[in-house]
Amino acid sequence: MILGAIEAGGTKFVLAVGNEKGELKEKLSIPTRTPEETMPEIYAFFRDKNIEALGIGCFGPLELNKEKEKYGYITSTPKLAWSDYDILGNLKKNLKVPVEISTDVSGAALGEVTFGAYEKENTLLYITVGTGIGGGYVIGGKIHNGMLHPEMGHVLVTKNPRDTYNGACPYHENCLEGLAAGPANEGRTGMKGIDIPDDHESFHFIAEYMAEALMSYILVLSPTKIVLGGGVMARTHMLPEIRQILEKKLNGYIKTDQLSSLDSYIVTPSLGAESGIKGALALALMAK
Amino acid sequence: MILGAIEAGGTKFVLAVGNEKGELKEKLSIPTRTPEETMPEIYAFFRDKNIEALGIGCFGPLELNKEKEKYGYITSTPKLAWSDYDILGNLKKNLKVPVEISTDVSGAALGEVTFGAYEKENTLLYITVGTGIGGGYVIGGKIHNGMLHPEMGHVLVTKNPRDTYNGACPYHENCLEGLAAGPANEGRTGMKGIDIPDDHESFHFIAEYMAEALMSYILVLSPTKIVLGGGVMARTHMLPEIRQILEKKLNGYIKTDQLSSLDSYIVTPSLGAESGIKGALALALMAK
Repeated sequence: MILGAIEAGGTKFVLAVGNEKGELKEKLSIPTRTPEETMPEIYAFFRDKNIEALGIGCFGPLELNKEKEKYGYITSTPKLAWSDYDILGNLKKNLKVPVEISTDVSGAALGEVTFGAYEKENTLLYITVGTGIGGGYVIGGKIHNGMLHPEMGHVLVTKNPRDTYNGACPYHENCLEGLAAGPANEGRTGMKGIDIPDDHESFHFIAEYMAEALMSYILVLSPTKIVLGGGVMARTHMLPEIRQILEKKLNGYIKTDQLSSLDSYIVTPSLGAESGIKGALALALMAK
Repeated sequence: MILGAIEAGGTKFVLAVGNEKGELKEKLSIPTRTPEETMPEIYAFFRDKNIEALGIGCFGPLELNKEKEKYGYITSTPKLAWSDYDILGNLKKNLKVPVEISTDVSGAALGEVTFGAYEKENTLLYITVGTGIGGGYVIGGKIHNGMLHPEMGHVLVTKNPRDTYNGACPYHENCLEGLAAGPANEGRTGMKGIDIPDDHESFHFIAEYMAEALMSYILVLSPTKIVLGGGVMARTHMLPEIRQILEKKLNGYIKTDQLSSLDSYIVTPSLGAESGIKGALALALMAK
């Protein structure tokens, strides 16, 4: 089977061709510009590839309710050129193949259970901590959406009294994304992300906020596996500290096999940086 | 069809006989004592009823993973007589009918979508605020469980600085249940619940905590309908205030039809006090 995959992010689009085994045969990364500039590049890439179906994991918010007129649209994004843009419809019209769409992070969750090491997990939560923070949840191999896709990055957390940063989210004073995503820590420290040393106190704040949010996710969803990806999580000292604080916060209230071994419960992506693009491949399989 | 239903709570067990339309034909309430005392009363009630199947919504925590040896057990409950008790196995053995089990609040959620006014909702969250706080989530007519059933009552919330109460939860200083359930407010006010007047400031605190928790539930699950039940929510002045605070907290970040009309999004149980027992009837239907 020849399948197309797109991972559409705020700074770049990753385009790929692969197969039903999750093998990637060809990959191209292009910068995210406007639809007028970016979409023709996408069409050109896929035109001679003979793909049978396409999957796209896309930045949001997206309209994912199939009963809505604007199903498959990017809706009220701050990336204004893409606001109210019918990305699903345009891909279908120009590439003439079935297309399945989800958020980028739900796609990554799907990638991990379809082609990653976690295919036996009945419920998997994927959280990305990078430019933004988002979560995707897969139940029995299917992405969970309700009235909208999840927006887990905006759960409120309790600020550490020593943390004087006011938060980067224009909507919420103390939401996780506004306090723990990459731009928040650049705002807090006045440094470029790459220049902030691992032992900077700000990472303790972030670990605390992540642990509090994870506690909520666990109590609400009860996932059998949690995968943490994204640029901030690439700091390998973060995960052990997050687990440690989480354990203290949960304080033994819930007793499960998973929570008794947090090292194998809260993990890094088994597909490394390819969870998203392979998730898009899994979406293409669903479109078939 | 003749179906049996049990709503097993910390203070009473409700036993009922009904049918596949959700009609209750006979109901009996007995106090929760020890398994040695209570279980024979249950067997006696159902013995001559000719039920074809039984559903039970039960206080927890429960082992609901069918692959576990202790599937259907009440596990580490503070009600010590019921700790590590095989309630499912004993019901099956003594009544010789198929039995389906869930938590009490997941049962109530199922009742609302099966026999209540919300059968068209693909995703429904039911939160009960009473002696404890719990949540049940139904997706496509099925109860959601992950590594465990949800334990939504224990999400952390930010304390109002004017609220000097230390919380009633032995595990978490500032979890929702410890600050907003009935016993918490009795501890805070030094009054019996029934004696606390509606205009007591403590109800503002509770409305704030509920709104913060609901914000998390909405961002994580994105339910298409939220039902709030339980004794504390029977104070009818609470719901409008909760909706108002929630709207401020979300601050327009998510745009959906549901969130633009909170009055029909966050509602009281359409089955009144019968969500739980009718949910148990719906569980019996599933056991068949």
